[in-house]
Amino acid sequence: MEITPLRLRDLAERLGCAFEGDGDFVVRGVASLESAGPQDLSFIRSARMLQRAAATRAGALIAPLDVELGARPILRSSHPELHFARAVAAIVSSARPQSGVHPTAVIAASTQIDSSASVGPHCIIGARCSVGARSVLYPRAVLYDDVRVGVDCVLHAGVVVREESSLGDRVILQPGAVIGADGFGYAFDEEGMPEKRPQVGRVVIENDVEIGALATVDRAALGETRIRRGAKIDNLCLIAHNCDIGEGVIIAGLSGLSGSVTVERGAILMGQVGVADHARIGERAFLAARAGVLRSGVPARAKVFGLPPREGRLWHRIQQLSARLPELFARVRALERQLGTAHKADDS
Amino acid sequence: MEITPLRLRDLAERLGCAFEGDGDFVVRGVASLESAGPQDLSFIRSARMLQRAAATRAGALIAPLDVELGARPILRSSHPELHFARAVAAIVSSARPQSGVHPTAVIAASTQIDSSASVGPHCIIGARCSVGARSVLYPRAVLYDDVRVGVDCVLHAGVVVREESSLGDRVILQPGAVIGADGFGYAFDEEGMPEKRPQVGRVVIENDVEIGALATVDRAALGETRIRRGAKIDNLCLIAHNCDIGEGVIIAGLSGLSGSVTVERGAILMGQVGVADHARIGERAFLAARAGVLRSGVPARAKVFGLPPREGRLWHRIQQLSARLPELFARVRALERQLGTAHKADDS
Amino acid sequence: MEITPLRLRDLAERLGCAFEGDGDFVVRGVASLESAGPQDLSFIRSARMLQRAAATRAGALIAPLDVELGARPILRSSHPELHFARAVAAIVSSARPQSGVHPTAVIAASTQIDSSASVGPHCIIGARCSVGARSVLYPRAVLYDDVRVGVDCVLHAGVVVREESSLGDRVILQPGAVIGADGFGYAFDEEGMPEKRPQVGRVVIENDVEIGALATVDRAALGETRIRRGAKIDNLCLIAHNCDIGEGVIIAGLSGLSGSVTVERGAILMGQVGVADHARIGERAFLAARAGVLRSGVPARAKVFGLPPREGRLWHRIQQLSARLPELFARVRALERQLGTAHKADDS
Repeated sequence: MEITPLRLRDLAERLGCAFEGDGDFVVRGVASLESAGPQDLSFIRSARMLQRAAATRAGALIAPLDVELGARPILRSSHPELHFARAVAAIVSSARPQSGVHPTAVIAASTQIDSSASVGPHCIIGARCSVGARSVLYPRAVLYDDVRVGVDCVLHAGVVVREESSLGDRVILQPGAVIGADGFGYAFDEEGMPEKRPQVGRVVIENDVEIGALATVDRAALGETRIRRGAKIDNLCLIAHNCDIGEGVIIAGLSGLSGSVTVERGAILMGQVGVADHARIGERAFLAARAGVLRSGVPARAKVFGLPPREGRLWHRIQQLSARLPELFARVRALERQLGTAHKADDS
Repeated sequence: MEITPLRLRDLAERLGCAFEGDGDFVVRGVASLESAGPQDLSFIRSARMLQRAAATRAGALIAPLDVELGARPILRSSHPELHFARAVAAIVSSARPQSGVHPTAVIAASTQIDSSASVGPHCIIGARCSVGARSVLYPRAVLYDDVRVGVDCVLHAGVVVREESSLGDRVILQPGAVIGADGFGYAFDEEGMPEKRPQVGRVVIENDVEIGALATVDRAALGETRIRRGAKIDNLCLIAHNCDIGEGVIIAGLSGLSGSVTVERGAILMGQVGVADHARIGERAFLAARAGVLRSGVPARAKVFGLPPREGRLWHRIQQLSARLPELFARVRALERQLGTAHKADDS
Repeated sequence: MEITPLRLRDLAERLGCAFEGDGDFVVRGVASLESAGPQDLSFIRSARMLQRAAATRAGALIAPLDVELGARPILRSSHPELHFARAVAAIVSSARPQSGVHPTAVIAASTQIDSSASVGPHCIIGARCSVGARSVLYPRAVLYDDVRVGVDCVLHAGVVVREESSLGDRVILQPGAVIGADGFGYAFDEEGMPEKRPQVGRVVIENDVEIGALATVDRAALGETRIRRGAKIDNLCLIAHNCDIGEGVIIAGLSGLSGSVTVERGAILMGQVGVADHARIGERAFLAARAGVLRSGVPARAKVFGLPPREGRLWHRIQQLSARLPELFARVRALERQLGTAHKADDS
């Protein structure tokens, strides 16, 4: 990683934040509160982190507007996490690979690579593809035929993008992500054996999407699988054929969406969630980790837990009372005894 | 994708179906009922889809024998999904890569590649391998030493097949699948630290198997891991060492089978299923999504849900009654009050 | 695989075990009790396997000290599984690729490869990396810039190790493992859309760690993600940014650890476990398959099941009593009838 030292006043201007304290303080790194040193910038999210902030050795902090932090260089922000993310991006960067096509890359003659793009060693690009300005393909990326990659994309090592997939601008694919593999679709033949349904649709990934390492987004059986603007999908997730993932949706690791699932904008799916085929997850719904959504789906803005999915308070109540089942059985038995009723099946 | 236009009467003959209406109607595409245009073929599964069929703009349909659809070109089928799958295969195809070995591929001298096979850029094939007629290795496939690939196989980009694995005929590996990685086996040493048990068995994949993107089938510790004829395994599944997966078995995404699991023929495992080591899943058993199978396994033809696995009706009943636990606690408390019994622990 | 035949007395000496019977018996293979032939070595774990041992055709056995097995070549061991693992390692081996760098590998000038290391075809190694003595990089391994690989490591085909990651000695990465991908971290922008938090930390993997096929260990957002000595991580696991995995920890397949999880030494996580961010799993804790750990974590030496995690006996009791909920509802209704109370909501 490379560091670009920045004066506090310059960083404040860049972020559109007010600052307090020494504007000439030079930020030379970023770190968590616990590990920051006197030249590092760190941040606090809210007044609840005050105790940790008091102990930090960080030279400067990004902090909410109303939190009292004594005399030290501070950037004031109504969105401390967001501004810290932007500060990190301003200060720390990975070396960008050189523009141009590495001589070991294998590229079909009919393909268009923008001259400002970077295509690394051993990349393989099929026929009739296009790679937009400033996009970077790290080593060993493979594009099948007829793939479109927009501008400012980053495709990490080992990604595979199958035929006819389209990637918008500023799309990031982490290492090993697979876009456009065949969906999992079979018909049963006359002997009851599964026979492949050809998967002849495609994948469309819109602008500003990020797909995690070793995640899969399958091509549509017919038509398209679509990941809309700004959606973020974590490692090892499975997005099956014909899914439609809404704008700004967040899907955490090891989640699996069956075929033709629709996730409306702004929904959040935590880790290891599963969604049955054809289900619809409403706008801004929240699915807790390991939630399992049936075909009936989840309404907009609902917060659900478990399988079957339950509203949060009910889910917690059920868990709480489940732990008291031994007690409840005993109480019922006591009542039965009191009334002279013996329950034959009761061996509890 | 490439389109081969077909007249209805020719398609009917090919599929062994009767047709109604204009046999000279030319099918120029395939689509879902909702997105089909007047030159497309679509299909309906049963009379329950009649309303959607009425609204479709599809030029022709594949339909069950007994469904009334008015005057339009129709292929009649007792297996509409199956025949639609076959129609799609007849009409739409991906360009097959050219036969021959790409000059950037690295292939050991002792390896036999059939002259009709296609080995793409940057494929790497170890010693004493064989690749059968018409098989296609997409870019960057890696075969370690002593791997056998039968005829008409398709190995997509980035697959890895480790030493001594054997693939039958018509096997499809989606991108990034890993066959023959070491199983997860350790013994504890004298200090209680895990020490690797060498995994010296192999993987045998029989004919007509398909393995999804980024799925793993581990080699056996000793002996073999076997995927039998026609089994279909989805993306991101884990088949551990020494599993035996039966004919025509279907295993959906993100499912994990521990070591030495046997799945008998025709069983269906939905998404995110987990199976404990040494368990046996009986013939034609159905495991609902997220079912968790203990070592005791699942009998033939059973349909199970949840962890521990329950027969379907019981599972649904438990879920229903669980949601009424708050009510049940209240009712028991009411009974206790009526009988003058106070339960000290009851704060519900 | 290659076989090194060994006389029983030599094997005994090597393992530090006593032997019984013909010390000149030559072991020519290893196998399970069921499939072993008369020249193979097999093993039994305890007296409970005596019946299977009686039926085996194995020429020699490793067995616990106190198990009576009649007159055949036996190696006596207080740790039969461990000594069998070591015997397998002594007898069976995979051919080690030749030392040296394959001419198709692309290696930055500033990188140091030990002359005894093996770098296979199409490996790509960035700037300022080091690869230690006797380490093997199978085909298509990719190291970004500033990666350190210790001695005696094995990196299988298709692994990706991103910038600044450090691997200790004797580290094994199974095919397709991804080390150092960006963590899944976003801040919400002024319009509520997720915006990437740059992930500028790194991954440190200590000695004797093994990472399974297609598993991901994400780089830290800030600071480091650390996998400590001897930890073993199975296929398709997700270790998120800033996790700290303790010595000798075992994490089975398809498990997902959220950001900043700490797992203390010797803990065992079975398959498909999920752990919420910032949770702490105490030393030698045992998490049953599919356990779901909340932020509150799990204490040392606890054995937990389910989500929410429960102590084993309670979890089993809850499952048992849940199946009797229909009965319990009926009993409560009977009591209500006896007391002349009708519960309006009761349709059970």
